Parts: sequence; C-alpha cells; structure tokens
Amino acid sequence: MVVIVSAMSGETNRLLALAKQVNDDPPPEYERELDVIASTGEQVSVGLVTLAIQKAGGQAQSFTGGQVRIVTDSAFTRARIKSIDGQKIHEALRAGKIAVVAGFQGIDDDGNITTLGRGGSDTSGVAIAAALKADTCEIYTDVDGVYTTDPNICPGARKVARVSYEEMLELASLGAKVLQIRSVEFAMKYGVKIHVRSSFNDNEGTWVVPEEKQMEDVLVAGVTAARDEAKVTLIGVPDKPGIAAKIFRPLSDHGIVVDMIIQNISEAGRTDLTFTVPRSDLKRSVELIKSTLPEMAEAGIKTDDHIAKVSVVGVGMRSHAGVAQRMFEILAAEGINILMISTSEIKISVVVEAKYAELAVRVLHDGFGLGVAPASP
Amino acid sequence: MVVIVSAMSGETNRLLALAKQVNDDPPPEYERELDVIASTGEQVSVGLVTLAIQKAGGQAQSFTGGQVRIVTDSAFTRARIKSIDGQKIHEALRAGKIAVVAGFQGIDDDGNITTLGRGGSDTSGVAIAAALKADTCEIYTDVDGVYTTDPNICPGARKVARVSYEEMLELASLGAKVLQIRSVEFAMKYGVKIHVRSSFNDNEGTWVVPEEKQMEDVLVAGVTAARDEAKVTLIGVPDKPGIAAKIFRPLSDHGIVVDMIIQNISEAGRTDLTFTVPRSDLKRSVELIKSTLPEMAEAGIKTDDHIAKVSVVGVGMRSHAGVAQRMFEILAAEGINILMISTSEIKISVVVEAKYAELAVRVLHDGFGLGVAPASP
Repeated sequence: MVVIVSAMSGETNRLLALAKQVNDDPPPEYERELDVIASTGEQVSVGLVTLAIQKAGGQAQSFTGGQVRIVTDSAFTRARIKSIDGQKIHEALRAGKIAVVAGFQGIDDDGNITTLGRGGSDTSGVAIAAALKADTCEIYTDVDGVYTTDPNICPGARKVARVSYEEMLELASLGAKVLQIRSVEFAMKYGVKIHVRSSFNDNEGTWVVPEEKQMEDVLVAGVTAARDEAKVTLIGVPDKPGIAAKIFRPLSDHGIVVDMIIQNISEAGRTDLTFTVPRSDLKRSVELIKSTLPEMAEAGIKTDDHIAKVSVVGVGMRSHAGVAQRMFEILAAEGINILMISTSEIKISVVVEAKYAELAVRVLHDGFGLGVAPASP
Repeated sequence: MVVIVSAMSGETNRLLALAKQVNDDPPPEYERELDVIASTGEQVSVGLVTLAIQKAGGQAQSFTGGQVRIVTDSAFTRARIKSIDGQKIHEALRAGKIAVVAGFQGIDDDGNITTLGRGGSDTSGVAIAAALKADTCEIYTDVDGVYTTDPNICPGARKVARVSYEEMLELASLGAKVLQIRSVEFAMKYGVKIHVRSSFNDNEGTWVVPEEKQMEDVLVAGVTAARDEAKVTLIGVPDKPGIAAKIFRPLSDHGIVVDMIIQNISEAGRTDLTFTVPRSDLKRSVELIKSTLPEMAEAGIKTDDHIAKVSVVGVGMRSHAGVAQRMFEILAAEGINILMISTSEIKISVVVEAKYAELAVRVLHDGFGLGVAPASP
C-alpha cells in the first residue's frame, strides 16, 4: 500500500498567507520560494501519518516528493510531473512498510522544490499509481462519490457507480469539485482506475474508468451548474478579419480564460460579440478591452455577472441524436430563457439567468431520468 | 552574505506537539519522522526570509539542508554534521544573491532528513562558515553578547568583549544559554571567529575567538549558576573494585549524564558515594539504582533537588594559582556551605544549597572584580 497525503485542512492557505504577509506580490522568479514554503504542509502530514500508522500497530515510512524523485518541470506553483522514480517506494514496500508520500510536490531537474497547484495531491496520487502500475488509485475525499448532480440543489441526485474519464473531465471542468482535472487527464493517459470515495465511511464510491459499452446506453450521466462566470457583450464590433484576435489577444496575454464565444450575424459591417470570462476577471477584462480597443468604449460594452452555466454531460450523446433538442425543450417548458449555447462531443452547456440555475438543474435532472439507476448490463 | 535561519519562535515546539498528539512515544526507528516534521519549521523560514529580502530590494535564494548537501550521520533528532558541499551556495553568491540556508537540518547519506537537536541552527551557521571559509560567523540572538554573569541575578554584570572558545565552552556547558555547545566546539575545531550579538540593535556583541595572550591576565572571565541538577547520595556502598561501574553503568545505558561524583573515605569496607544528575532524570536514576543494586535500597539512598552548581571560569586559572582558595574564602565569608567541588583546567564548580545560588553568584562576581572592565592590552 502506498498512501499519498495532502496538507492538513487550511494549512496550505495558512502558509501562503504567511508568505503574503512578508511579500504581497513577489515577482515570478520568487515563486520558487512560495513552493519552498507551501510544500511543508504535506511534509508535516507524511510524518504525522507515518507516526499514526506506527501507533496503530503498522509499519510505515514517509517520503517527500524529492525523496521519491517526483520530477517536474520548473513551473513553480503549477508544475507538471515529468517522471517518477518508484525505486525508494518499492524498497519500502519490500520491507513490509506502507509508503507514505507527500502529495502536491516534486522537484525539478536542479533539485528545486516545486508544487503542482491546487488539488495537486490528486494528481500526485494518480501519477504514482501509474508509475507503480497499481491496481487502483483510491481517492479519499469529503464526498462519497460522483453524483448525477449537486445533491444540495437536487434531492433526487444519485451516486454514479461508474463514469468514464471523458465524462469526469467534463464534469470537473464544469464545476464538480470531486477530482482535480489534471488528475483525470493523467488517469486517462495511463489507464489508472480511480475509485473516488469518502474519508468518513467504507461505502463503495464512484469508479472513474475507461469508457465501457453500457455507458453509451445512458444519454446523460450528469448535470452541473457553474456560477463563476460573467458575460461580456461588445455591441457594434467592426466585422472585419482579425478583429476577434485583436479583442481576445490581450485577455489571453493576461491569463484570462475566455470560455464561450458567440458572434451574431453581421449587419452593415458591424456585429455583436458575446463571451464569458471567470467572474473574478470581469473587471480586468473590460479594462483591457477598453485600453486596446478605444473605439469600443463608445460603441458600448455590456456586462452581466448574474448568469449561470448549466451543462449536461454523457458519452451517450455521441451515439444518440436529439439530446440538445430535448434539453432546450425541457428548459423552455419551464420558461427558462437560454442566453448562450456551447457544445462538445459529450457535453451541452447553456448560459441562463443566475436565478434559474437551480431550477434548470432540477428539471434537466428529472427530464433526463437521472434519478433512476440504469438497469445493470 | 550567507544567512542561516532558525524556525519562527515556538514553531519547532508546535510541530513536535503535533507529532506527540498522534504518537506520544514513537520507537527509536520512527524518530526519522520527527525530523521530517520538525525540519519544516526552518524550511518555511528560509522561504519567508528570501521573500522579505526581495521585498526590501535585495536578491536572495533559499536552500534546505538537503539542497546544500549538509550531510550528517543518521542519528535522527541529534545528528552530527559530517560534510557540507558549498557549491550551490557559491553559485548563488556568484549570481549576486544572498544565500538563505535552513539551519538545524541536514540529510544523511541515504537522503533522509535529519535535524541537529535543539539550538542546532547555531551549529549549522558555524559549520557553513567553516565550509565556506567565511571571515566571520555572526550569531544574532536575543541577548547582546556574553556577560560576566546573568544580569538578572547580578546588576553589575558586564558584557565581555572577547572570550576564548574554551571559556565559552565551559560557560555554555554550565548553563549560559547564549550559544549551543556544539557550535562552539565546531568553531574551535575549524577556527571560525564568532560574533555573538543582538537581533534588536547594532551594538558590538562578544567575539568568541582563539585564546589570546591578554586573556590570561584575567583570573575569572565569568560566573554561572545552574539549577537543573539534583544530588544523589548512596550511603554505605561496599568499597570493592567494580562497584562504581556497577552503579553508573545502568545510568549511562539509559542516557543519563552523571556530572559530579564524590566518593568519601572508606570506613570498615563501606563508603558513601554522592553524584549529581539532571533534575529531570532524578526519579529514574533512583529507580535504576534500586533495581540493579537491590542491596542499596536498604542501605539508604538520599536525594536532594534543592541544589545549585555555581562555577567560575577563566583561562587565567591555568597560569594563576589560588583561584579555588579565593573562591572558597569568598563563599565562606558569606556563610555559604559548599556541598561538592569539581574542577577542570579553566573552571571551578561548587554545589551549594539552591537558596544561596544568587548570593553566591553576586559575591563571586564582586570578589573577582568582574564588574570592572580589564585594562586594554
């Protein structure tokens, strides 16, 4: 058994707050030091967990990311794992010990301490499971699995027994906080079977696995709502080549991720352009557009941060037509107006007024029959 | 400039208390984990200090003990430094950066994290100064130097400008808390000049340096009192070869350090034996003697933990006779009874009743003229 542990609750925030106290805005080349500081949260945890295992009668040994050579690139605070040397872990296992490894951290080729970014311990776990060719990667969390939707919004929400990597990726990127996106990408790449389950009971959780035949029989696997975006509409944009690039380049340069983009039909050489950005970036986005496109300021920039993105996800969409149509009908029947639409192979997202978010989730959950468990294959 | 930093005030205690909460008595082979946990205190500090230097307009880079390869033995929680690889530090210095190195910690040959024991950051500082052949090792602390005695006890106490390694070693081992003993040993071995000074002002502190000619002109450099010992008297011990070994072997085997030992003149084949042990080990010492020498239990074991050891220290004693005699006269003049005596080349210690400790320090300080600065050479 290999155990990958996170920092204690609140510890990473406490450590980064200490750093902020002495230097509230370090330049990029000093982000190295943030990782030196933040990585201690997991280091304390591996020591404590190892001591606790010994106290409980077991045998264990702790490892920092550096000690098992979890080698990453040098992108401090958001490093990516390049390789893992399983040798030290294998030695501990052969000696009959449980290997307790610090999540969230690694070292780069020069021995600098790196961290993987928020939720990075999930990724560490999956990456170590892949390196060791483990049978399963069990991820213990504060919920007991992946649900068809948020049980706080929809009492009929049901725990899903199995979900495909692709579905989990869409659900995670749409706001389901169960697993970090990168950990799912890693699992998909290396075929690691994940079992997401509760830290507080022994119930079977949700398996995140390669796509299975019977998953296609289910039209929609889950419904999500995200409230962290805002909508920007640029009215009367000159409809000429290169204008979209001119608008979105400054946002991209400043690390602002634009999600959905809609361009209306052009009239008299001008068009309206609507897009969404993270709500926390709304103000800066508008400022950037005003400064790079002064002509827009007068033409008019409208913003709306009272929106929600409601999505349905399922690999069954690939083989079944009409899911989008059904979704629009369900929402229309409740008088919910759709402001924007975006689709991918296994996902349909609509933007609606924020006040309709919960209602939309409930009627879609019922309308697609998600409260009823699918028949066993 | 190379800066060696300790953990923040109280941090090491907080971390070890966390460990104690999950496992109050880990077996020796799990002391490794205590070091994994405790070493994070300094790791956080190096990150914070580096960020603070950047904020103040400087350039710096942090290093853990492992990153500069402070290689120690594998005696977890009390490791000893074997070697230091200055290469990474030199690289940082050449790049115009201040190197900020975690004190108190190192790694063993297998890459396990070790700590040097309490006060180990002093030792780290001196060892790194030696490895880099630094001009000076400045040790910043909460006092502004080494005093002739504790100013809290004796208002006439005077800051000493220069003191020899040997004197500092005796003062430290007798309870002056200014420098860790091992750091002084290291400095003496490698000829590192230490400047002990205050963190809170720019005053010149005390230089700890190789012995100088004019130091011999001072009979006594300092007076100390230690209250952390207790006295054990074994009455009527059989006076036969090997009995002392039989008494002290179990204490030594259990890591109890016996300080002073006095054996009275033998009468009728029996003798009284008196010795001192750390007060915290008194109970266990008596139990060990009772269990290994059952015949002692009846003969009688007397203990006294209301004692103090008062000492005078000075390299001048080597060349000047009569210091002991003068010390006994000064104490006798105040009616202070001497319970035990022990001497070394540059130190005389006496055990007195605890209630006389402060008085003894004051009269010795005055009697040897320590309140008056020696004439400049």
